[in-house]
Amino acid sequence: MEARKSENAVTSVDVARRARVSQATVSRVFSGKSVVRQGTVDRVMTAASELGYRPNAIARSLTSRRTNLIAVVSVDSTHTFYSSILNGISGRLTRAGKQILFFLTDFEAGFDDIFQQVLQYKVDALLIVSAAVSVEITEECSRISLPVVIFNRQIRSSHVFSICSDNRAAARDVADYLAGRGYKAFAYIGSDRRLSDISADRRQGFTERLAELGFGDVRFVCGNYTYESGRTAMRELLDSAGFDAGSRAVFASNDLMAMGAMDAARHEYGLSIPGDIAVVGFDAIGEGAWKSYSLTTVEQPIDKMLDVACSHLMKRLDGKETDGGTRLFRCKILERATA
Amino acid sequence: MEARKSENAVTSVDVARRARVSQATVSRVFSGKSVVRQGTVDRVMTAASELGYRPNAIARSLTSRRTNLIAVVSVDSTHTFYSSILNGISGRLTRAGKQILFFLTDFEAGFDDIFQQVLQYKVDALLIVSAAVSVEITEECSRISLPVVIFNRQIRSSHVFSICSDNRAAARDVADYLAGRGYKAFAYIGSDRRLSDISADRRQGFTERLAELGFGDVRFVCGNYTYESGRTAMRELLDSAGFDAGSRAVFASNDLMAMGAMDAARHEYGLSIPGDIAVVGFDAIGEGAWKSYSLTTVEQPIDKMLDVACSHLMKRLDGKETDGGTRLFRCKILERATA
Repeated sequence: MEARKSENAVTSVDVARRARVSQATVSRVFSGKSVVRQGTVDRVMTAASELGYRPNAIARSLTSRRTNLIAVVSVDSTHTFYSSILNGISGRLTRAGKQILFFLTDFEAGFDDIFQQVLQYKVDALLIVSAAVSVEITEECSRISLPVVIFNRQIRSSHVFSICSDNRAAARDVADYLAGRGYKAFAYIGSDRRLSDISADRRQGFTERLAELGFGDVRFVCGNYTYESGRTAMRELLDSAGFDAGSRAVFASNDLMAMGAMDAARHEYGLSIPGDIAVVGFDAIGEGAWKSYSLTTVEQPIDKMLDVACSHLMKRLDGKETDGGTRLFRCKILERATA
Repeated sequence: MEARKSENAVTSVDVARRARVSQATVSRVFSGKSVVRQGTVDRVMTAASELGYRPNAIARSLTSRRTNLIAVVSVDSTHTFYSSILNGISGRLTRAGKQILFFLTDFEAGFDDIFQQVLQYKVDALLIVSAAVSVEITEECSRISLPVVIFNRQIRSSHVFSICSDNRAAARDVADYLAGRGYKAFAYIGSDRRLSDISADRRQGFTERLAELGFGDVRFVCGNYTYESGRTAMRELLDSAGFDAGSRAVFASNDLMAMGAMDAARHEYGLSIPGDIAVVGFDAIGEGAWKSYSLTTVEQPIDKMLDVACSHLMKRLDGKETDGGTRLFRCKILERATA
């Protein structure tokens, strides 16, 4: 047992002694940052391999002031939409030689709650997915020169760079699409603002465009982005007075709620979709394409958005970019069979 | 700009100077590991707060030889099953004061591919979710005294602790359940062994129990754990000769394939489920409960399994447990409406 532990504790000094070079030379060989004669490199590598030496990324970070760690902060990742985003981030950052230190927060608490904990790890940058962040915290990040990129949220800040879909424009498109197909009664299933600004943006775009088209009365039902809350919302809509005419259309702020709404309409009220009622979702998650749903939805250009987020992060790390700002992406309606 | 950077570089020495104590005292205050007079603590905390000092978790790890980092290695996390496991792990480890360094690998490459990269970060332990690991790598981990826990796979090793469902027993239960309900023709949708040992265990349990019950001919179709591959598998089954009689039942090695199989049977062949053909899945993911599916499936006691995995990991870190081994968990059939 002792022999094993001492093997684990081999240092660059041991390697230097065995290779008969200075410790600084061993460091230079492993950092790969300056030129070392090939014969010396070979001697160091042989000694390192014989001793089972492994350079310590963390110790190295203390001298280079770089940890190569990116803190990725996400809300609850069990939703397919978030887990596929995390997968996309993980692949891109790994290919760029970065490592992800993963933090989980919840919708309500947001990022502020875990900020101090994140700071302890001296990460090179922060990538926040869908979590709320206060102005105070973004200012603190600016003060300590910590690059911050926010994905799927919009933050007004001269330091933070936000990558987000143009949710208002997308919701206006949905309004045009549904009105153009002859629907005359409309409802929106969203969430309250505390849970997501995004829902509020979509609601605003949807209702303001419908108002322009002459439909002033858009019902709003509050869900919480789960399948179950979509079911409940549809029940509430169908049980309420005045939403029982034909030509009804429901726009939900994500696909999970849209699918819950569809199942309630079909399996609890015996309605056909889109015959009796149309449903449109948002996100284009894989499940929406399943034959039982074939959900018409709004597709965000997630791959392109992730490319921009990660490449902006890299530019920040290289000091080539320092400004905050927002980049909005245009979405498109993915026509399937529910509207 | 310079002023900001220097603020970031405040060290314990600066705090010690301002508080008029030794640097060792500052360290003691922040490590919380030894008793310091309250007056001194207050002076140090005030000085630290005035200077904007934050103890560096990484620097601290070099003296304590603990990083508090746990490497969590997972296969593709876009499957709901894996993302909910990762969520569960993340919550448990965070509550235990640990931080997750997240590594992604794919089914085929397994863990071996990224082992060297993981080692660079001097993590305290490894938690591997569903990824394959070679004997050589587990031996290397043992040699360097790095605790390893594997979730949802079984590895024979005196060093690695495996947490897994008793897949063979669960599949035997499914055979009993289906035979008991009068089904007479059986098929299994799994994957090839390269992708997952688990599929092979389930197949073995299912076919051996059916053979004991007098049903020697169990068809096998190979999928890859996606919804699409379940659809393709069902088409293959329904197009093949001899599987067109009544009383047919299909057992799929995960819910996603089961749901794909259901959609193919219903929407492409106009079959009713379970009237014309029964379908049973595995995993009990949320989507299986959706009204359009109401999938009968096998439920693994994931919460209990995660509790055991994380508490074993903690015991290992405290040196209270060193042995490898396997703990198998009993699953149960979750009866819904498809068999």
